[in-house]
Amino acid sequence: MFRPEIKVVDCTIRDGGLANDSKFPLETVRNVYRAVCESGVDYVELGYRNSKKMFSTSEFGPWRFCDEDQLQKVVEGIDPGNTQITVMQDAHKATAEDVLDRDKSVVDMIRVATYIKDIDKAIALAQNATNKGYDCAVNIMAISHESSPFLDEALQQIESETEAKSVYIVDSFGALYSEEVDFLVEKYQQHIKTKEVGLHFHNNKQLAFSNTIAGIIKGANFMDGTLYGLGRGAGNCPTELLLGFLKNPKFNIVPLLDVIASDIIPLQKELTWGYTIPYMLTGMLDQHPISAIKWLASDKRDDFNAFYQEVTDEFGTAD
Amino acid sequence: MFRPEIKVVDCTIRDGGLANDSKFPLETVRNVYRAVCESGVDYVELGYRNSKKMFSTSEFGPWRFCDEDQLQKVVEGIDPGNTQITVMQDAHKATAEDVLDRDKSVVDMIRVATYIKDIDKAIALAQNATNKGYDCAVNIMAISHESSPFLDEALQQIESETEAKSVYIVDSFGALYSEEVDFLVEKYQQHIKTKEVGLHFHNNKQLAFSNTIAGIIKGANFMDGTLYGLGRGAGNCPTELLLGFLKNPKFNIVPLLDVIASDIIPLQKELTWGYTIPYMLTGMLDQHPISAIKWLASDKRDDFNAFYQEVTDEFGTAD
Repeated sequence: MFRPEIKVVDCTIRDGGLANDSKFPLETVRNVYRAVCESGVDYVELGYRNSKKMFSTSEFGPWRFCDEDQLQKVVEGIDPGNTQITVMQDAHKATAEDVLDRDKSVVDMIRVATYIKDIDKAIALAQNATNKGYDCAVNIMAISHESSPFLDEALQQIESETEAKSVYIVDSFGALYSEEVDFLVEKYQQHIKTKEVGLHFHNNKQLAFSNTIAGIIKGANFMDGTLYGLGRGAGNCPTELLLGFLKNPKFNIVPLLDVIASDIIPLQKELTWGYTIPYMLTGMLDQHPISAIKWLASDKRDDFNAFYQEVTDEFGTAD
Repeated sequence: MFRPEIKVVDCTIRDGGLANDSKFPLETVRNVYRAVCESGVDYVELGYRNSKKMFSTSEFGPWRFCDEDQLQKVVEGIDPGNTQITVMQDAHKATAEDVLDRDKSVVDMIRVATYIKDIDKAIALAQNATNKGYDCAVNIMAISHESSPFLDEALQQIESETEAKSVYIVDSFGALYSEEVDFLVEKYQQHIKTKEVGLHFHNNKQLAFSNTIAGIIKGANFMDGTLYGLGRGAGNCPTELLLGFLKNPKFNIVPLLDVIASDIIPLQKELTWGYTIPYMLTGMLDQHPISAIKWLASDKRDDFNAFYQEVTDEFGTAD
């Protein structure tokens, strides 16, 4: 698949930061940044630009905030090639004033992540980014829980009220099958006429990569991946698989293989991600993974049957 | 997806046996057998019925041969429910005389695995199984390396010369994308009019489950899985994911969750399977995984770049 409009966003540090409270060593972030730039991937997301009023700076590492002087240390002396830098703002956990004017920043694009209920906050942050000179995107999270009329309205608002380059389908719960991806891309395309559709999929059911391909075939042109699928729980669509599928000659997988070996595989000593039964079950049941996170931290972690009873019983009592 | 014709084959012990030379303890095999029967899965494959002239009995465990007295020990005292037992014969490594008459066996179906070059041997073994009273299937391996005229001819032969219940697409190298699955299911359906199309996919590119779904949507009705994806290298389509996708009320995922916890997860102490970069690369390059197997056993195992150079250079010198 080679469509010149296709853009890949590697969000290893941002999304992977959900697994370690954004506490990557600076050298890891520099190595990832260098490798992504060398690979020709279009965007690299270096973390969140969230508010220090809502996240404790002692509890969370620097990539939850991405202060400009911190980002300077990342990029110093590294040739960016054609790779642009993004950071993410959570609509309900970030403020406009934390975003400096574009000419005082190394950031190229602000991506605003939001639930439908916070869409007006998200639009305000997107407009703030545009006004300060950045490109921007809007990522609609927990898409599998959004019913049609509110989603339609949100898409219509994003289309008419923002300058976003892309509007994302974010499968936060790893719950979607490809038929649902097809349906959602078509729905987005009905409303989003002047922007691209984006894809961000979690791997609970081992469908993150295949769902991304399904969305590409339907015409989505922005897609997220992380190196070796790094992420909380089941993780994400692996960036290296995306590059293998996309035939665009500007991409080079070799620097990614190197940094996976040098910096990502060693993280397995302290972090666990990938396919596990509890995350598979929350994905299959279209639930937030918080129950799986708690279960895996308990001494019952391998009693999958008990976990299954717990997550299904919750709904068995509803009438 | 609920189509009454759909049949699931759990081949954990047979295919997983490629990762440990078929050396599972009897108790593990009994536990898997019991769980699969309780789950309502249609078939359970307990190993190979291959020839002791071609495999050393000291080097390989009992599930490479599946002697009848050994299988008796597996099933003793366990209610099979509606689950039938299959064993596999490799066309070029098995003999007709190792198959007893059906009334002397606990086996219900013989599946013959073959490369196109061995198709006549496979047909002879399939006919032998039919003549002795078994159901049978033919699994065409390494399908991504088979070009059209020979594959067409083989399918035509299987259709007219065997009583196989199903004819499988086997993606031995984990190389297929869903578009290729669509193409192959349609090709099979052109020739296979009296039998079902089967699906057996490897997970090198994290596409085994999604490719199985793609094949189901196209009309394939037999599909293979293994518990927790157990298998050599990247492994297989996880049976538990298949049951989650299929809505057939006869299936029950709970016994599978239990046996994954009790018997499959503990195997990770001695066996490694799942997504890794070397197997991903052989899948992407549509190569046999032998180079990845050797690489991962070497002291260079995490030098992915060097591995990539090796597996791509091999072809760079061709003229």
